[in-house]
Amino acid sequence: MTNPTAAMLVIGDEILSGRTQDSNTYYLAGQLTAHGINLKEVRVVSDDASAIIDSVRDLSNNYTHVFTCGGIGPTHDDITSDSIAKAFDTNIDIREDARSILQQHYDAQNLPLNDARLRMARIPNKATLIDNPVSKAPGFTLKNVHVMAGVPSIFKAMLASVLPNIIGGQPLMSETYRVEKGEGDIAAPLSKLADAFPDLSVGCYPFQHNGLYGANIVLRGHDAAVLKEAIERLKTEFLK
Amino acid sequence: MTNPTAAMLVIGDEILSGRTQDSNTYYLAGQLTAHGINLKEVRVVSDDASAIIDSVRDLSNNYTHVFTCGGIGPTHDDITSDSIAKAFDTNIDIREDARSILQQHYDAQNLPLNDARLRMARIPNKATLIDNPVSKAPGFTLKNVHVMAGVPSIFKAMLASVLPNIIGGQPLMSETYRVEKGEGDIAAPLSKLADAFPDLSVGCYPFQHNGLYGANIVLRGHDAAVLKEAIERLKTEFLK
Repeated sequence: MTNPTAAMLVIGDEILSGRTQDSNTYYLAGQLTAHGINLKEVRVVSDDASAIIDSVRDLSNNYTHVFTCGGIGPTHDDITSDSIAKAFDTNIDIREDARSILQQHYDAQNLPLNDARLRMARIPNKATLIDNPVSKAPGFTLKNVHVMAGVPSIFKAMLASVLPNIIGGQPLMSETYRVEKGEGDIAAPLSKLADAFPDLSVGCYPFQHNGLYGANIVLRGHDAAVLKEAIERLKTEFLK
Repeated sequence: MTNPTAAMLVIGDEILSGRTQDSNTYYLAGQLTAHGINLKEVRVVSDDASAIIDSVRDLSNNYTHVFTCGGIGPTHDDITSDSIAKAFDTNIDIREDARSILQQHYDAQNLPLNDARLRMARIPNKATLIDNPVSKAPGFTLKNVHVMAGVPSIFKAMLASVLPNIIGGQPLMSETYRVEKGEGDIAAPLSKLADAFPDLSVGCYPFQHNGLYGANIVLRGHDAAVLKEAIERLKTEFLK
Protein backbone atom coordinates (compact mmCIF):
# COMPACT_ATOMS: atom_id res chain seq x y z
CA MET A 1 0.00 0.00 0.00
CA THR A 2 1.38 3.40 -0.90
CA ASN A 3 1.01 6.28 1.51
CA PRO A 4 -1.60 9.02 1.06
CA THR A 5 -0.21 12.26 -0.39
CA ALA A 6 -0.74 15.87 0.60
CA ALA A 7 -0.16 19.45 -0.48
CA MET A 8 -0.02 22.65 1.56
CA LEU A 9 -1.42 25.98 0.36
CA VAL A 10 -0.25 29.02 2.31
CA ILE A 11 -2.40 32.10 1.64
CA GLY A 12 -1.24 35.61 2.48
CA ASP A 13 0.45 38.76 1.17
CA GLU A 14 2.42 39.02 4.41
CA ILE A 15 4.43 35.91 3.51
CA LEU A 16 5.16 37.05 -0.06
CA SER A 17 6.15 40.57 0.99
CA GLY A 18 8.70 39.20 3.46
CA ARG A 19 6.92 40.65 6.48
CA THR A 20 6.24 37.26 8.05
CA GLN A 21 8.19 34.01 7.84
CA ASP A 22 5.87 31.07 7.32
CA SER A 23 6.40 28.43 10.00
CA ASN A 24 3.23 26.40 9.44
CA THR A 25 4.69 24.47 6.51
CA TYR A 26 7.61 23.23 8.57
CA TYR A 27 5.28 22.16 11.38
CA LEU A 28 2.86 20.46 9.00
CA ALA A 29 5.70 18.63 7.20
CA GLY A 30 6.91 17.09 10.46
CA GLN A 31 3.42 16.07 11.53
CA LEU A 32 2.53 14.52 8.19
CA THR A 33 5.79 12.59 8.02
CA ALA A 34 5.07 11.12 11.46
CA HIS A 35 1.52 10.29 10.32
CA GLY A 36 2.64 8.47 7.17
CA ILE A 37 1.31 11.07 4.75
CA ASN A 38 3.73 12.21 2.04
CA LEU A 39 3.80 15.98 1.63
CA LYS A 40 4.52 16.39 -2.08
CA GLU A 41 4.05 20.07 -2.83
CA VAL A 42 3.68 23.45 -1.15
CA ARG A 43 2.39 26.65 -2.72
CA VAL A 44 2.25 30.15 -1.33
CA VAL A 45 -0.17 32.57 -3.02
CA SER A 46 -1.40 36.08 -2.28
CA ASP A 47 -4.81 37.14 -0.98
CA ASP A 48 -6.21 36.97 -4.48
CA ALA A 49 -9.36 35.00 -5.29
CA SER A 50 -8.30 33.58 -8.66
CA ALA A 51 -4.85 32.57 -7.36
CA ILE A 52 -6.51 30.71 -4.47
CA ILE A 53 -9.21 29.09 -6.63
CA ASP A 54 -6.77 27.88 -9.30
CA SER A 55 -4.31 26.45 -6.78
CA VAL A 56 -6.95 24.70 -4.69
CA ARG A 57 -8.50 23.01 -7.73
CA ASP A 58 -5.10 21.92 -8.99
CA LEU A 59 -3.86 20.57 -5.67
CA SER A 60 -7.18 18.95 -4.75
CA ASN A 61 -7.10 16.99 -8.02
CA ASN A 62 -3.49 15.89 -7.64
CA TYR A 63 -3.20 14.86 -3.97
CA THR A 64 -5.13 12.90 -1.35
CA HIS A 65 -5.30 15.87 1.03
CA VAL A 66 -4.83 19.63 0.81
CA PHE A 67 -4.13 21.74 3.88
CA THR A 68 -4.55 25.51 3.67
CA CYS A 69 -3.60 28.21 6.14
CA GLY A 70 -4.44 31.89 6.24
CA GLY A 71 -7.25 34.20 5.22
CA ILE A 72 -10.13 33.03 7.41
CA GLY A 73 -10.29 35.99 9.82
CA PRO A 74 -12.83 38.85 10.00
CA THR A 75 -11.14 41.48 7.80
CA HIS A 76 -11.79 42.44 4.18
CA ASP A 77 -8.66 40.64 2.94
CA ASP A 78 -9.82 37.33 4.45
CA ILE A 79 -11.22 35.74 1.31
CA THR A 80 -10.13 32.13 1.68
CA SER A 81 -13.49 30.61 2.69
CA ASP A 82 -15.38 32.25 -0.15
CA SER A 83 -12.64 31.30 -2.61
CA ILE A 84 -12.69 27.64 -1.55
CA ALA A 85 -16.48 27.58 -1.98
CA LYS A 86 -16.07 29.04 -5.48
CA ALA A 87 -13.33 26.52 -6.33
CA PHE A 88 -15.87 23.72 -5.78
CA ASP A 89 -18.99 25.59 -7.01
CA THR A 90 -20.49 25.27 -3.54
CA ASN A 91 -22.83 27.75 -1.84
CA ILE A 92 -21.47 29.64 1.15
CA ASP A 93 -23.32 31.64 3.79
CA ILE A 94 -23.40 32.24 7.53
CA ARG A 95 -23.98 28.82 8.99
CA GLU A 96 -25.96 28.35 12.20
CA ASP A 97 -23.52 25.91 13.85
CA ALA A 98 -20.60 28.29 13.34
CA ARG A 99 -22.66 31.36 14.29
CA SER A 100 -23.65 29.73 17.55
CA ILE A 101 -20.02 28.97 18.48
CA LEU A 102 -19.07 32.62 17.87
CA GLN A 103 -22.17 34.00 19.65
CA GLN A 104 -21.31 32.07 22.79
CA HIS A 105 -17.66 33.13 22.62
CA TYR A 106 -18.32 36.86 22.19
CA ASP A 107 -21.26 36.91 24.64
CA ALA A 108 -18.92 35.56 27.31
CA GLN A 109 -16.57 38.48 26.68
CA ASN A 110 -19.31 41.08 26.35
CA LEU A 111 -18.19 41.82 22.81
CA PRO A 112 -20.68 42.33 19.97
CA LEU A 113 -20.97 39.66 17.26
CA ASN A 114 -20.80 42.37 14.59
CA ASP A 115 -20.80 41.97 10.80
CA ALA A 116 -17.02 41.57 10.64
CA ARG A 117 -16.99 38.77 13.21
CA LEU A 118 -20.00 37.14 11.55
CA ARG A 119 -17.87 36.76 8.41
CA MET A 120 -16.05 34.03 10.32
CA ALA A 121 -19.31 32.03 10.42
CA ARG A 122 -19.38 31.89 6.61
CA ILE A 123 -18.91 28.18 5.92
CA PRO A 124 -19.54 26.36 2.63
CA ASN A 125 -22.51 23.95 2.44
CA LYS A 126 -21.69 20.40 3.49
CA ALA A 127 -18.30 21.37 4.94
CA THR A 128 -17.40 19.85 8.33
CA LEU A 129 -16.24 22.31 11.00
CA ILE A 130 -12.71 22.10 12.40
CA ASP A 131 -12.55 22.86 16.11
CA ASN A 132 -10.56 25.94 17.20
CA PRO A 133 -9.79 25.70 20.91
CA VAL A 134 -7.69 28.89 20.83
CA SER A 135 -9.96 31.60 19.47
CA LYS A 136 -13.14 29.64 18.64
CA ALA A 137 -13.71 30.77 15.01
CA PRO A 138 -13.75 27.38 13.26
CA GLY A 139 -11.93 26.08 10.22
CA PHE A 140 -13.59 23.56 7.93
CA THR A 141 -13.03 20.54 5.73
CA LEU A 142 -14.65 20.58 2.27
CA LYS A 143 -14.04 17.47 0.17
CA ASN A 144 -10.31 16.77 0.60
CA VAL A 145 -9.37 20.34 1.58
CA HIS A 146 -8.74 21.27 5.22
CA VAL A 147 -9.04 25.04 5.68
CA MET A 148 -7.22 26.38 8.73
CA ALA A 149 -6.01 29.61 10.31
CA GLY A 150 -2.65 31.22 9.60
CA VAL A 151 -1.79 32.16 13.20
CA PRO A 152 0.65 29.37 14.13
CA SER A 153 -0.86 28.53 17.54
CA ILE A 154 -4.31 28.17 15.96
CA PHE A 155 -2.97 26.28 12.96
CA LYS A 156 -1.35 23.74 15.28
CA ALA A 157 -4.50 23.32 17.36
CA MET A 158 -6.67 22.87 14.26
CA LEU A 159 -4.27 20.35 12.76
CA ALA A 160 -4.48 18.38 16.01
CA SER A 161 -8.26 18.18 15.45
CA VAL A 162 -7.93 17.11 11.83
CA LEU A 163 -5.10 14.56 11.85
CA PRO A 164 -6.75 11.87 14.01
CA ASN A 165 -9.65 11.80 11.53
CA ILE A 166 -7.67 11.12 8.40
CA ILE A 167 -6.11 7.87 7.36
CA GLY A 168 -2.35 7.82 7.57
CA GLY A 169 0.17 5.41 6.13
CA GLN A 170 3.45 3.99 7.23
CA PRO A 171 5.42 6.70 9.02
CA LEU A 172 8.55 7.74 7.19
CA MET A 173 11.58 6.96 9.33
CA SER A 174 15.05 8.33 8.88
CA GLU A 175 18.61 7.57 9.88
CA THR A 176 21.36 10.18 9.74
CA TYR A 177 25.09 9.55 9.39
CA ARG A 178 27.52 12.43 9.70
CA VAL A 179 30.77 12.38 7.71
CA GLU A 180 33.55 14.92 7.68
CA LYS A 181 34.25 14.61 3.98
CA GLY A 182 33.29 16.84 1.06
CA GLU A 183 30.08 16.06 -0.79
CA GLY A 184 32.14 15.52 -3.92
CA ASP A 185 34.00 12.64 -2.26
CA ILE A 186 30.92 10.82 -1.04
CA ALA A 187 28.67 11.38 -4.05
CA ALA A 188 29.77 8.22 -5.90
CA PRO A 189 29.44 5.88 -2.87
CA LEU A 190 26.00 7.38 -2.14
CA SER A 191 24.89 6.74 -5.67
CA LYS A 192 25.86 3.07 -5.25
CA LEU A 193 24.00 2.96 -1.94
CA ALA A 194 20.89 4.41 -3.60
CA ASP A 195 21.10 1.71 -6.30
CA ALA A 196 21.48 -1.04 -3.70
CA PHE A 197 18.47 0.19 -1.70
CA PRO A 198 15.86 1.33 -4.22
CA ASP A 199 13.14 1.61 -1.54
CA LEU A 200 15.11 4.20 0.43
CA SER A 201 15.54 7.86 -0.36
CA VAL A 202 19.14 8.96 0.09
CA GLY A 203 19.82 12.63 0.82
CA CYS A 204 23.08 14.44 1.41
CA TYR A 205 23.17 17.79 3.23
CA PRO A 206 26.52 19.54 3.38
CA PHE A 207 27.59 21.72 6.27
CA GLN A 208 30.50 24.06 6.80
CA HIS A 209 31.30 25.91 9.98
CA ASN A 210 34.37 26.91 11.95
CA GLY A 211 36.56 25.66 9.16
CA LEU A 212 35.09 22.18 9.43
CA TYR A 213 33.14 20.78 6.52
CA GLY A 214 31.24 17.63 5.84
CA ALA A 215 27.76 16.32 5.22
CA ASN A 216 24.84 14.69 6.92
CA ILE A 217 23.70 11.68 4.96
CA VAL A 218 20.02 11.03 5.56
CA LEU A 219 18.34 7.77 4.60
CA ARG A 220 14.55 7.72 4.65
CA GLY A 221 12.21 4.77 4.38
CA HIS A 222 9.34 2.82 5.88
CA ASP A 223 11.17 -0.28 7.10
CA ALA A 224 13.37 0.11 10.19
CA ALA A 225 15.32 -3.09 9.50
CA VAL A 226 16.19 -2.04 5.95
CA LEU A 227 17.26 1.41 7.21
CA LYS A 228 19.53 -0.19 9.78
CA GLU A 229 21.08 -2.51 7.22
CA ALA A 230 21.68 0.41 4.83
CA ILE A 231 23.41 2.51 7.49
CA GLU A 232 25.63 -0.46 8.40
CA ARG A 233 26.62 -1.10 4.80
CA LEU A 234 27.16 2.65 4.28
CA LYS A 235 29.72 2.69 7.11
CA THR A 236 31.44 -0.62 6.51
CA GLU A 237 31.24 -0.99 2.75
CA PHE A 238 30.31 2.04 0.65
CA LEU A 239 32.30 4.68 2.56
CA LYS A 240 35.15 2.36 3.47
CA MET B 1 4.58 51.36 -14.84
CA THR B 2 3.77 48.22 -12.93
CA ASN B 3 6.49 46.35 -11.08
CA PRO B 4 8.10 43.17 -12.42
CA THR B 5 6.78 39.97 -10.85
CA ALA B 6 8.57 36.90 -9.53
CA ALA B 7 8.08 33.36 -8.32
CA MET B 8 10.26 31.17 -6.13
CA LEU B 9 10.72 27.44 -6.64
CA VAL B 10 12.23 25.56 -3.70
CA ILE B 11 13.48 22.10 -4.67
CA GLY B 12 14.18 19.42 -2.09
CA ASP B 13 12.80 16.40 -0.25
CA GLU B 14 14.37 17.68 2.97
CA ILE B 15 11.91 20.59 3.08
CA LEU B 16 8.85 18.43 2.38
CA SER B 17 9.83 15.76 4.91
CA GLY B 18 10.13 18.38 7.66
CA ARG B 19 13.86 17.80 8.17
CA THR B 20 14.84 21.32 7.15
CA GLN B 21 12.96 24.58 7.50
CA ASP B 22 13.25 26.65 4.33
CA SER B 23 14.60 30.11 5.09
CA ASN B 24 15.54 31.16 1.55
CA THR B 25 11.98 32.17 0.66
CA TYR B 26 11.77 34.61 3.56
CA TYR B 27 15.13 36.13 2.64
CA LEU B 28 14.23 36.37 -1.05
CA ALA B 29 10.85 37.96 -0.25
CA GLY B 30 12.48 40.77 1.72
CA GLN B 31 15.12 41.40 -0.95
CA LEU B 32 12.61 41.46 -3.79
CA THR B 33 10.28 43.81 -1.92
CA ALA B 34 13.17 46.23 -1.40
CA HIS B 35 14.07 45.90 -5.09
CA GLY B 36 10.54 46.66 -6.32
CA ILE B 37 9.84 43.17 -7.63
CA ASN B 38 6.54 41.63 -6.55
CA LEU B 39 6.91 38.04 -5.35
CA LYS B 40 3.58 36.49 -6.38
CA GLU B 41 3.96 32.77 -5.82
CA VAL B 42 6.17 30.20 -4.13
CA ARG B 43 6.25 26.48 -4.79
CA VAL B 44 8.12 23.72 -3.00
CA VAL B 45 8.57 20.46 -4.90
CA SER B 46 10.53 17.28 -4.31
CA ASP B 47 13.70 16.09 -6.07
CA ASP B 48 11.61 14.74 -8.92
CA ALA B 49 12.34 15.65 -12.55
CA SER B 50 8.77 15.96 -13.77
CA ALA B 51 7.70 18.02 -10.74
CA ILE B 52 10.60 20.42 -11.37
CA ILE B 53 10.04 20.61 -15.13
CA ASP B 54 6.28 21.24 -14.86
CA SER B 55 6.68 23.91 -12.18
CA VAL B 56 9.50 25.75 -13.95
CA ARG B 57 7.57 25.92 -17.22
CA ASP B 58 4.45 27.12 -15.46
CA LEU B 59 6.18 29.77 -13.37
CA SER B 60 8.46 30.94 -16.19
CA ASN B 61 5.39 31.60 -18.35
CA ASN B 62 3.48 33.44 -15.65
CA TYR B 63 6.07 35.73 -14.04
CA THR B 64 8.88 38.09 -15.06
CA HIS B 65 11.47 36.17 -13.03
CA VAL B 66 11.75 32.74 -11.42
CA PHE B 67 14.25 32.04 -8.66
CA THR B 68 15.05 28.43 -7.77
CA CYS B 69 17.03 27.02 -4.89
CA GLY B 70 18.28 23.53 -4.20
CA GLY B 71 19.48 20.51 -6.14
CA ILE B 72 22.63 21.81 -7.85
CA GLY B 73 25.25 19.92 -5.81
CA PRO B 74 27.36 16.88 -6.76
CA THR B 75 25.15 14.03 -5.51
CA HIS B 76 22.79 11.75 -7.41
CA ASP B 77 19.69 13.55 -6.10
CA ASP B 78 20.91 16.89 -7.48
CA ILE B 79 18.86 16.94 -10.66
CA THR B 80 17.86 20.60 -10.88
CA SER B 81 20.25 21.70 -13.66
CA ASP B 82 19.33 18.82 -15.95
CA SER B 83 15.62 19.35 -15.23
CA ILE B 84 15.81 23.07 -16.05
CA ALA B 85 17.54 22.25 -19.34
CA LYS B 86 14.78 19.75 -20.14
CA ALA B 87 12.09 22.28 -19.24
CA PHE B 88 13.40 24.55 -22.00
CA ASP B 89 14.50 21.82 -24.45
CA THR B 90 18.09 23.04 -24.13
CA ASN B 91 21.24 20.92 -24.33
CA ILE B 92 23.27 20.52 -21.17
CA ASP B 93 26.82 19.25 -20.72
CA ILE B 94 30.00 20.02 -18.78
CA ARG B 95 30.85 23.58 -19.77
CA GLU B 96 34.44 24.77 -20.00
CA ASP B 97 33.92 28.05 -18.11
CA ALA B 98 32.33 26.24 -15.18
CA ARG B 99 34.85 23.38 -15.29
CA SER B 100 37.71 25.84 -15.11
CA ILE B 101 36.28 27.56 -12.02
CA LEU B 102 35.98 24.18 -10.28
CA GLN B 103 39.41 22.96 -11.44
CA GLN B 104 41.11 26.01 -9.93
CA HIS B 105 39.12 25.66 -6.69
CA TYR B 106 39.87 21.99 -6.11
CA ASP B 107 43.48 22.24 -7.30
CA ALA B 108 44.07 24.87 -4.63
CA GLN B 109 42.81 22.42 -2.01
CA ASN B 110 44.59 19.40 -3.45
CA LEU B 111 41.26 17.70 -3.97
CA PRO B 112 40.45 15.75 -7.13
CA LEU B 113 37.92 17.16 -9.59
CA ASN B 114 36.20 13.78 -9.78
CA ASP B 115 33.07 12.80 -11.71
CA ALA B 116 30.75 13.82 -8.89
CA ARG B 117 32.27 17.31 -8.63
CA LEU B 118 32.27 17.63 -12.41
CA ARG B 119 28.48 17.26 -12.31
CA MET B 120 28.47 20.80 -10.89
CA ALA B 121 29.99 22.03 -14.18
CA ARG B 122 26.93 20.79 -16.10
CA ILE B 123 25.40 24.04 -17.35
CA PRO B 124 22.75 24.41 -20.07
CA ASN B 125 23.76 25.97 -23.40
CA LYS B 126 23.44 29.75 -23.49
CA ALA B 127 22.93 30.04 -19.73
CA THR B 128 24.87 32.81 -17.92
CA LEU B 129 26.84 31.72 -14.87
CA ILE B 130 25.98 33.09 -11.43
CA ASP B 131 29.02 33.73 -9.27
CA ASN B 132 29.39 31.68 -6.06
CA PRO B 133 31.93 33.37 -3.78
CA VAL B 134 31.28 30.83 -0.99
CA SER B 135 31.99 27.42 -2.51
CA LYS B 136 32.70 28.30 -6.17
CA ALA B 137 30.33 25.88 -7.96
CA PRO B 138 28.29 28.38 -10.01
CA GLY B 139 24.56 28.84 -10.42
CA PHE B 140 23.15 29.99 -13.74
CA THR B 141 20.47 32.08 -15.39
CA LEU B 142 18.61 30.51 -18.32
CA LYS B 143 15.95 32.72 -19.91
CA ASN B 144 14.09 34.24 -16.96
CA VAL B 145 15.05 31.50 -14.47
CA HIS B 146 17.81 32.05 -11.91
CA VAL B 147 19.08 28.72 -10.61
CA MET B 148 20.77 28.92 -7.22
CA ALA B 149 22.00 26.74 -4.36
CA GLY B 150 19.87 25.67 -1.41
CA VAL B 151 22.49 26.24 1.31
CA PRO B 152 21.34 29.60 2.75
CA SER B 153 24.77 31.30 2.84
CA ILE B 154 25.36 30.40 -0.83
CA PHE B 155 21.80 31.33 -1.83
CA LYS B 156 22.28 34.78 -0.31
CA ALA B 157 25.64 35.29 -2.02
CA MET B 158 24.27 34.20 -5.41
CA LEU B 159 21.22 36.44 -5.05
CA ALA B 160 23.57 39.34 -4.39
CA SER B 161 25.20 38.60 -7.77
CA VAL B 162 21.89 38.36 -9.59
CA LEU B 163 19.84 41.24 -8.21
CA PRO B 164 21.98 44.15 -9.46
CA ASN B 165 21.58 42.80 -13.01
CA ILE B 166 17.82 42.67 -13.12
CA ILE B 167 15.48 45.58 -13.51
CA GLY B 168 13.54 46.43 -10.38
CA GLY B 169 10.50 48.60 -9.89
CA GLN B 170 9.30 50.95 -7.23
CA PRO B 171 10.18 49.48 -3.83
CA LEU B 172 7.16 48.50 -1.80
CA MET B 173 7.05 50.56 1.40
CA SER B 174 5.02 49.81 4.47
CA GLU B 175 3.72 51.55 7.56
CA THR B 176 2.56 49.65 10.61
CA TYR B 177 0.09 50.84 13.24
CA ARG B 178 -0.48 48.79 16.35
CA VAL B 179 -3.90 48.78 18.01
CA GLU B 180 -5.00 47.00 21.14
CA LYS B 181 -8.43 46.10 19.84
CA GLY B 182 -9.84 42.87 18.49
CA GLU B 183 -9.68 42.29 14.76
CA GLY B 184 -13.47 42.07 14.74
CA ASP B 185 -13.71 45.65 16.00
CA ILE B 186 -11.36 47.15 13.45
CA ALA B 187 -12.41 45.14 10.40
CA ALA B 188 -15.14 47.60 9.30
CA PRO B 189 -12.95 50.74 9.63
CA LEU B 190 -10.14 48.95 7.74
CA SER B 191 -12.50 48.07 4.96
CA LYS B 192 -13.41 51.78 4.63
CA LEU B 193 -9.72 52.70 4.66
CA ALA B 194 -9.04 50.17 1.88
CA ASP B 195 -11.87 51.73 -0.18
CA ALA B 196 -10.50 55.25 0.38
CA PHE B 197 -6.96 54.24 -0.66
CA PRO B 198 -7.34 51.79 -3.56
CA ASP B 199 -3.60 51.93 -4.37
CA LEU B 200 -2.61 50.63 -0.94
CA SER B 201 -2.79 47.10 0.33
CA VAL B 202 -4.23 46.95 3.84
CA GLY B 203 -3.33 44.00 6.03
CA CYS B 204 -4.32 43.18 9.58
CA TYR B 205 -2.26 40.76 11.68
CA PRO B 206 -3.68 39.88 15.08
CA PHE B 207 -1.52 39.13 18.09
CA GLN B 208 -2.27 37.75 21.52
CA HIS B 209 0.21 37.35 24.34
CA ASN B 210 0.26 37.72 28.11
CA GLY B 211 -3.47 38.30 28.10
CA LEU B 212 -3.10 41.30 25.83
CA TYR B 213 -4.60 41.17 22.37
CA GLY B 214 -4.70 43.43 19.37
CA ALA B 215 -3.50 43.71 15.82
CA ASN B 216 -0.79 45.23 13.68
CA ILE B 217 -2.32 47.09 10.78
CA VAL B 218 0.11 47.14 7.85
CA LEU B 219 -0.37 49.48 4.90
CA ARG B 220 1.77 48.77 1.83
CA GLY B 221 2.26 50.93 -1.24
CA HIS B 222 4.72 52.68 -3.53
CA ASP B 223 4.10 56.32 -2.55
CA ALA B 224 5.45 57.47 0.81
CA ALA B 225 3.20 60.55 0.94
CA VAL B 226 0.06 58.49 0.33
CA LEU B 227 1.11 56.00 3.00
CA LYS B 228 1.64 58.80 5.50
CA GLU B 229 -1.73 60.33 4.72
CA ALA B 230 -3.44 56.95 5.08
CA ILE B 231 -1.85 56.29 8.49
CA GLU B 232 -2.93 59.76 9.66
CA ARG B 233 -6.51 59.27 8.52
CA LEU B 234 -6.51 55.79 10.03
CA LYS B 235 -5.64 57.21 13.45
CA THR B 236 -7.72 60.39 13.39
CA GLU B 237 -10.71 59.36 11.32
CA PHE B 238 -11.32 55.69 10.64
CA LEU B 239 -10.38 54.32 14.08
CA LYS B 240 -11.66 57.32 16.02
